[in-house]
Amino acid sequence: MPQQTVANFAEVRALLPALPGPDLAASASASARESQLTKPPGALGRLEELTQWLCAWQARHPPRLDHPRVAVFAGNHGVAARGVSAYPAEVTKQMVANFISGGAAINQLCKALDADLRVYEMSLDTPTADFTSGPAMSEADCAHAMAYGMMAVEPGIDILSLGEMGIANTTSAAAICHALHGGAARDWVGPGTGVAGEGLARKTAAVEAGVKANRAALGDPLKILAALGGREIAAIVGAILAARLARTPVMLDGYTSTAAGAVLHALEPGLLDHCQVGHCSAEPAHAQLCARIGKQPVVNLGMRLGEGTGAALAVMILRGAVACHTGMATFAEAGVSGKEK
Amino acid sequence: MPQQTVANFAEVRALLPALPGPDLAASASASARESQLTKPPGALGRLEELTQWLCAWQARHPPRLDHPRVAVFAGNHGVAARGVSAYPAEVTKQMVANFISGGAAINQLCKALDADLRVYEMSLDTPTADFTSGPAMSEADCAHAMAYGMMAVEPGIDILSLGEMGIANTTSAAAICHALHGGAARDWVGPGTGVAGEGLARKTAAVEAGVKANRAALGDPLKILAALGGREIAAIVGAILAARLARTPVMLDGYTSTAAGAVLHALEPGLLDHCQVGHCSAEPAHAQLCARIGKQPVVNLGMRLGEGTGAALAVMILRGAVACHTGMATFAEAGVSGKEK
Repeated sequence: MPQQTVANFAEVRALLPALPGPDLAASASASARESQLTKPPGALGRLEELTQWLCAWQARHPPRLDHPRVAVFAGNHGVAARGVSAYPAEVTKQMVANFISGGAAINQLCKALDADLRVYEMSLDTPTADFTSGPAMSEADCAHAMAYGMMAVEPGIDILSLGEMGIANTTSAAAICHALHGGAARDWVGPGTGVAGEGLARKTAAVEAGVKANRAALGDPLKILAALGGREIAAIVGAILAARLARTPVMLDGYTSTAAGAVLHALEPGLLDHCQVGHCSAEPAHAQLCARIGKQPVVNLGMRLGEGTGAALAVMILRGAVACHTGMATFAEAGVSGKEK
Repeated sequence: MPQQTVANFAEVRALLPALPGPDLAASASASARESQLTKPPGALGRLEELTQWLCAWQARHPPRLDHPRVAVFAGNHGVAARGVSAYPAEVTKQMVANFISGGAAINQLCKALDADLRVYEMSLDTPTADFTSGPAMSEADCAHAMAYGMMAVEPGIDILSLGEMGIANTTSAAAICHALHGGAARDWVGPGTGVAGEGLARKTAAVEAGVKANRAALGDPLKILAALGGREIAAIVGAILAARLARTPVMLDGYTSTAAGAVLHALEPGLLDHCQVGHCSAEPAHAQLCARIGKQPVVNLGMRLGEGTGAALAVMILRGAVACHTGMATFAEAGVSGKEK
């Protein structure tokens, strides 16, 4: 597979017809084996569904989960200057240094998973424009960020978890959701890293102003992404598309990562079929967003850290699912009696 | 610590005053470190709470999770003859053979976790008495099974997951719950391995008849356990107590394992403080039972297999929690700016 790239939205749209669907034969093989394993039919619940999904999108049976990758994209946001976060904007860069030196939560989870962690730093010294007075990015900048995200997909990755870091990016995520799904700005705004009171009011006002200032983008999900997103969010959109082309299943993380997915879902709902949402974030709008895009998060642990941490935990569960599916004995192998009648 | 044993319920009751409480100093150390780690306060949600709980009940900080054990107790039930399960009673023994040869779901999860799996087969050729016409076990038999369960606790175990196998044991679990918590028999009865229609009606009738036939036991949780439980359920009760004595935290599994815990909770609610419920089972009464005993399951994946499978998945999450807590850098170490203001 040649490395994919895009320079503008026309090139993004041109990719869509080429995206592969699920491998129904692999999925049927998974289902056939599942019914022979030594357990009552369906007794592994969601694990069985996840295994089948993995086979469909890895296009193989048995599934493999030996090489998980976690890609974390980091970007800075002009809207951070509006006082929408509990932390100063320099924390984005400091946290990237922390990822690189191995001190963040996602480093520990990747070590536990034996997952390959990649950190993608995206022009942190040049934040996107403040979207309350116009688009955060031009079309070319947005497409460039998407192309950058596509690089996270390489051959041999069994599942790609997509996380992010970026002070103010739940403000950006909220603005995207508000633009895509309507309602009131406050329906999509939450504490993020921990704003409350006046900070939360400023955040809500910024989301409202952002959508008003970018009316021209409404109705076109890619234009919404450029207008209200950030580079790390655009990169996640690109990575999701490239993963689909490469038949690499995707584990989304929390609110910001799912908002990136929601852009593709708005473009065409099937574009997210190779993606799961790893966890339900404590960010209040995340559950609602998941419902809108038809996803049921794998775990719900009240987390709101980003970095791909919720996705990594979900991959642990997925690994358990694959271990059961591939390692269990069948009724015939184990000499266990089947269901009566 | 000498190996604990009990020969009757008076000896069980005599143990209770000696059971240790949480180590508040270890828990405070966990909380103090948590607040310095490079993430917004509380951003790891349930993971932070689980780490603190683990420290309190391991009585140490930092916590360790290098040596998890999964203990699976297997027992046969006289009430199985009433046609309450979708599978014949010989499956209990066949599944034990499957555990021993490594073919069951729990074997694969233990391998993934590098957990020590112990299988305890409990007089499978001699089922307990059919509780629809009197007690399933005598007090001495029940205490003997509890003492057997206590043997699953040995020095050096960082967390003990408690699972079970026993055709008809969700009928037994439902009868215990009905006896402990009242309501109607049908409130506590579900499909188990997959009964529906007439099978489900027979199961509900058996639970109703069991509680009626054992009225003399009502009001005393240990007598309820003997009257309506099974050996594997009594063994789990014993293991929970022995784990408390040994300062070993416990991960309960699904409906049957939690019903065992509910016996102790009824005796004294604090007896379950060193236990978490690993998953919310698809067995409909499990969520209700967890609410009654004040437990929030760690994951909810629609599973209903038993064997400790849901507990093992929860231990994976817990291991992620411990990895974050022990491995992350502090704000000072990483040079990351704290919250503004």
